[in-house]
Amino acid sequence: RPADVGEEVTLCGWVQYLRQDLFVIMRDFSGLAQILIPQDEVRLQVAVTFTISAIVNDSILISVEILNVCRKLPFEIKDFVKKSESLRMQYRYLDLRSSQMQYNLRLRSQLVMKMREYLCNVHGFVDVETPTLFKRTPGGAKEFVVPSREPGRFYSLPQSPQQFKQLLMVAGIDRYFQLARCYRDEGSKPDRQPEFTQVDIEMSFVDQAGIRGLIEGLVQYSWPVEKDPVSTPFPCITYEKAMKDYGVDKPDTRFAMKLMDISKTFHNTEIEFLKDALNQPGGCIQAICIPDGAVSTADGALKSPLNRLMPASAKQQLLQMAQARPGDLLLISAGTQECRPLLGKLRLQCAELLEGSGVAVRDPSAFHFLWVVDFPLFLPKEEDPDQLESAHHPFTAPLPEDAHLLYSLPHKVRGQHYDLVLNGCEIGGGSIRIHKASDQQHVLETILKEDPSLLSHLLEALDSGAPPHGGIALGLDRFLSIIVGAPSIRDVIAFPKSFRGHDLMSRAPDFVSEDELKSYHIAVNWPAGDEGNQEK
Amino acid sequence: RPADVGEEVTLCGWVQYLRQDLFVIMRDFSGLAQILIPQDEVRLQVAVTFTISAIVNDSILISVEILNVCRKLPFEIKDFVKKSESLRMQYRYLDLRSSQMQYNLRLRSQLVMKMREYLCNVHGFVDVETPTLFKRTPGGAKEFVVPSREPGRFYSLPQSPQQFKQLLMVAGIDRYFQLARCYRDEGSKPDRQPEFTQVDIEMSFVDQAGIRGLIEGLVQYSWPVEKDPVSTPFPCITYEKAMKDYGVDKPDTRFAMKLMDISKTFHNTEIEFLKDALNQPGGCIQAICIPDGAVSTADGALKSPLNRLMPASAKQQLLQMAQARPGDLLLISAGTQECRPLLGKLRLQCAELLEGSGVAVRDPSAFHFLWVVDFPLFLPKEEDPDQLESAHHPFTAPLPEDAHLLYSLPHKVRGQHYDLVLNGCEIGGGSIRIHKASDQQHVLETILKEDPSLLSHLLEALDSGAPPHGGIALGLDRFLSIIVGAPSIRDVIAFPKSFRGHDLMSRAPDFVSEDELKSYHIAVNWPAGDEGNQEK
Repeated sequence: RPADVGEEVTLCGWVQYLRQDLFVIMRDFSGLAQILIPQDEVRLQVAVTFTISAIVNDSILISVEILNVCRKLPFEIKDFVKKSESLRMQYRYLDLRSSQMQYNLRLRSQLVMKMREYLCNVHGFVDVETPTLFKRTPGGAKEFVVPSREPGRFYSLPQSPQQFKQLLMVAGIDRYFQLARCYRDEGSKPDRQPEFTQVDIEMSFVDQAGIRGLIEGLVQYSWPVEKDPVSTPFPCITYEKAMKDYGVDKPDTRFAMKLMDISKTFHNTEIEFLKDALNQPGGCIQAICIPDGAVSTADGALKSPLNRLMPASAKQQLLQMAQARPGDLLLISAGTQECRPLLGKLRLQCAELLEGSGVAVRDPSAFHFLWVVDFPLFLPKEEDPDQLESAHHPFTAPLPEDAHLLYSLPHKVRGQHYDLVLNGCEIGGGSIRIHKASDQQHVLETILKEDPSLLSHLLEALDSGAPPHGGIALGLDRFLSIIVGAPSIRDVIAFPKSFRGHDLMSRAPDFVSEDELKSYHIAVNWPAGDEGNQEK
Repeated sequence: RPADVGEEVTLCGWVQYLRQDLFVIMRDFSGLAQILIPQDEVRLQVAVTFTISAIVNDSILISVEILNVCRKLPFEIKDFVKKSESLRMQYRYLDLRSSQMQYNLRLRSQLVMKMREYLCNVHGFVDVETPTLFKRTPGGAKEFVVPSREPGRFYSLPQSPQQFKQLLMVAGIDRYFQLARCYRDEGSKPDRQPEFTQVDIEMSFVDQAGIRGLIEGLVQYSWPVEKDPVSTPFPCITYEKAMKDYGVDKPDTRFAMKLMDISKTFHNTEIEFLKDALNQPGGCIQAICIPDGAVSTADGALKSPLNRLMPASAKQQLLQMAQARPGDLLLISAGTQECRPLLGKLRLQCAELLEGSGVAVRDPSAFHFLWVVDFPLFLPKEEDPDQLESAHHPFTAPLPEDAHLLYSLPHKVRGQHYDLVLNGCEIGGGSIRIHKASDQQHVLETILKEDPSLLSHLLEALDSGAPPHGGIALGLDRFLSIIVGAPSIRDVIAFPKSFRGHDLMSRAPDFVSEDELKSYHIAVNWPAGDEGNQEK
C-alpha cells in the first residue's frame, strides 16, 4: 500500500501462479500481489502452488521463504473451474478458497457481528447460551438422541431453545438473544441440514408490534452496505389474505400474478366438474393470469377445452375479471381447500419457466420482506381431523380478541404468531407466548391432549410470576443464502452435511465399535442381512 | 429518571414487596421503584409477588394492571435466603433472579461481546461456525455418540473444533474465531460440565509471541471496567521452571512459598529414608516454608522428628536455605518425580488452611495471569511407559530448536504449546501446529502408533499448501467463574447440569421408548436386574 513505501515488509500468502518464470503472483483473501524474482532465483519454477513469505524492500525482493509445498490438487482453485458438489464437499478446505465462498463466510461473520451489536449494545439484550443436551420434548420425533452412561437414559438435541428462552423470561433476563445451534433429524430433505443456526430472541413486556419493529431495525442495521438499503416498516398481511392472494403462507411478493376468485363467472355454469366444485362447502374457482404466458400462440382468441362449453358473456366476464390481454395465459383451478395452494405453486413455477426463457419476472437484486400474521392457532390433525394440533407450537398466545374462544371454539382462534418472509421464503417466525399457567395447561391438556407432566417445569415457571413475553427465531442460514443469492444453504455454511446427512470429508457418521457402545448400554440392531456391512 | 419528569411512563416489573399496604416496591434487574397506591386501591394486598405494569404521571399513579399472579414460591428471591444446590437447580428460573446470577449472566454477555468486537472489528477475525455432529476422533473415548438413521453409524459430539480450525487455515480463512460449544463425556467429575464453551481462535502465519500478544490484548480489551485493569504482557515461565518452583504446571503466583531444593543439606545424611531417596536416579529433597505456619507453638526451636537425627550444622544450613524464621513451618518431601507435585499440592492446601484461620495469603481482588511454555511434546504412557503419547494433542509443532530430535529422540522434544494460567487455574491452552504433512504423518504413525487413515483428510489438507498456523482455546466458563469469584462454573452458566450430568429442572437425561429408538437401529442393553427401573 502507498503508506508502506520505503518500509521493509513481509508478505505471506499462497502462490497463485508463476508468470514467465520471473514473476510470482501471490494470493490471499484480500487480493493478489506480483513479485519480481531476480534471475538467479528461478529455481522457484519447481512448485505449482506453495505457501510463501516474501520480504520486500522498496519493491526490491530481499528474500523468499517457501513455507510449505503443495501436492497436485484434485481441482484448480479458479472460479471458472466447475466442480461437482460431492468433490466440493470432499475437499471442502479447497472449495472454501474460492472467492465466492470467502465472500459468503466473511459476510456471514460481519452480518452476525452487526446483529450482535444491534441487540447487545444498542438494545440491551443479554446473550445467554442454553444447553443442547436436554430432555426429549413431547412429540419430538425429529430430535436426535444422545445416550448417557445411565442405562436407558438419553439426552435429546433440541430443535430450538424454546423452553429455555421462555424460562429466561421468568428468570428476569428481560431481553435475551442467542445465535443458537439447533438440531433436526429429518432424514434426507432437500436443502435441510441436521444442524443449523437460528438468531433466537425473546423479550418481556412486549407485543407483536414491538417484536416486529425490533426485527425490522435488526435487518436494517445488519444489512450489507454493498446492497441497496432496506426500507422499513415491512409490509404486513394476514394469513387469510396471503392464502387468498397467493395461495401460500409465504408469498413471493416480487411479482404480481395474484390469485383471483372467478367463481361468479361460473355460478350458472353447465360444465359438470365446475358445478360440482362450486356445490361443495367452501367450493370455489380460482385463476391466475400469466402475462405473456402464451405469447407464442397469441391471436386474441380464447384457446381452452372450456371454450366451447362457455357462453360468450361468461368468457367476456372472465377476461375482464382477469384483466387478460392477448398472449396472456389463464390458469384455472376449481375445488375447495386445495384449490388455492395448487395455483400458488403454479404461480411460482410459471415465474421460473418464464425466467428460464429470458422473461424478467423478478428483479434478482430485489429483497421483498413481508410479515404474515393472524395464523390459525390450531389446525385439524391430518391423521385425525377431529383432533387439533398446534399450527406452530403449543406456547403461542391467542389474539386478544379471540382469547374468549379458547375455551369454546378453539378451532376458530387466531394466534399471535408472525412469520417473516423474504422473497417467498420463510426466514423467521415467532409469537407472543401464553404467560398464564392456567391457559397453557388448558391448551396442552384439553385442546392438544398432551401429557402436561412432560412440561410441568414450564407450567410451574409460568405460575411463578411469568411476565408477558414474546420472541422470534430467524433462520440464519436461509437468510444469508438469499442475501448472497446462493442456490443452497450449504453455500453459507463452512462444513455442511450432504443431502443424506453425511460429512463427505471425514466420512461421518461412521461405525463405532461394540465395545465403545458398551459404556452407553446400547447395541446396534442390524437389519437382517445387513450385518456384513459392519466395518468393525 | 430526572429526564422523564412530566412524562407519562409505564413501568413493568415484578412486585418485590408491599409496604404498609400503601407502597408497592417494584423490581427488575436494573433496580427498585416505589409506587404509592391511592387508598381506594388497597386490594393489591392480595398478592405476594405478581407482575405489574404501572402507569405513572408526574409521580401520580394513573392505573395499575396486574399482568400475572404468582404461586407461593419454593424459596424467597432474597440474597440472604440460603438455598441448597439441588433446589437452586430444580428451580433455576427462580435462582437466576438473584442479583448475583443476574450479574454473572449479564457480565458474561458483555464480556463475550467485547471479545467479539476485539477479534472481529479490531483484528479482522472471521467468526465461523463449525459442525458439532462429526466423526469420532481416534482415541476419542470421552466423546458422546449420536446414532444416525443408518444402522451402526454414529456421529460424535467433538471435544473441540480442533480439526475444523486447522482445515479453515488451509482454506484461507487466515484469522478464525468462534465461541464454540464443546462436549466431553467424563461421567461425574467435580465442576465439569458435559457441554461447555470455549473461545476458539486460530491464525495463519503466526508464531507463539503473536498468539500470546493477541490474547493479552483480548483479555485487556474485554476486562470488566469495574475491576482493576489488567497489565500486559503477562509473565511467562517454562514448564520446567513451573514444576521446579511450584510443583505444578499451573502455578498460583498470587503468593510465594516456592519450592526449594534442599538436597545439599542432606548429601551426607545418615537418615536412612532420605539417603535412599537421594541415591535414586533423579532423587532429591524439596521443601516449602510456610510463613507463620507454626506460629502457635513458636519458641525458636526446631520441632521435628528429624531434629535429633540432624547435626547442628545441617540444621543451620536448612534454616538458612529456607530463610525460615521462628513460627514458620517447613514441609519437606524426599523422593523422585512425585516429590515436587506433592509439595505443590501441600503449598495450596496450606494457603487455604491459613486463609481459613484468617491469615491473608492471597488478595481476593488480585488476578495473576501467567503463561507456561516449553512443555514436553510427548509423555510416556501411564499403562506402557515405553510408548509415548501426546502431552496435549498430536497436532502441536516442536520447538524449532528441538525439531531435529523428532526423528531421533522424540521424548526429548519440547512442543510449541502454551498454557494461560489465571490464579492457579488453567484457563486456556494452545499451540503452533505442525503444518507439514510429512511431519504430521511421522508423529501419528511412527511416534504415536495411531492409524493415520483416520485423519487422512487432515493429512491431505496439510499437503495442499497449508500455511504455518497456530491458535488457542480459552475456557470461557472457568475464566468467568474466576472473574466473578464464583465457587463453581455452574454459577456462570444459565442452565448447568448437576454433578451427575442431570438437568434437575427437566429431569434429563430421560427414558426413551423402544419404539423411538428403532429408527436409530439401537436397543438398550439393560444391566442384569435393572430392567425394572425402566419407566416406559
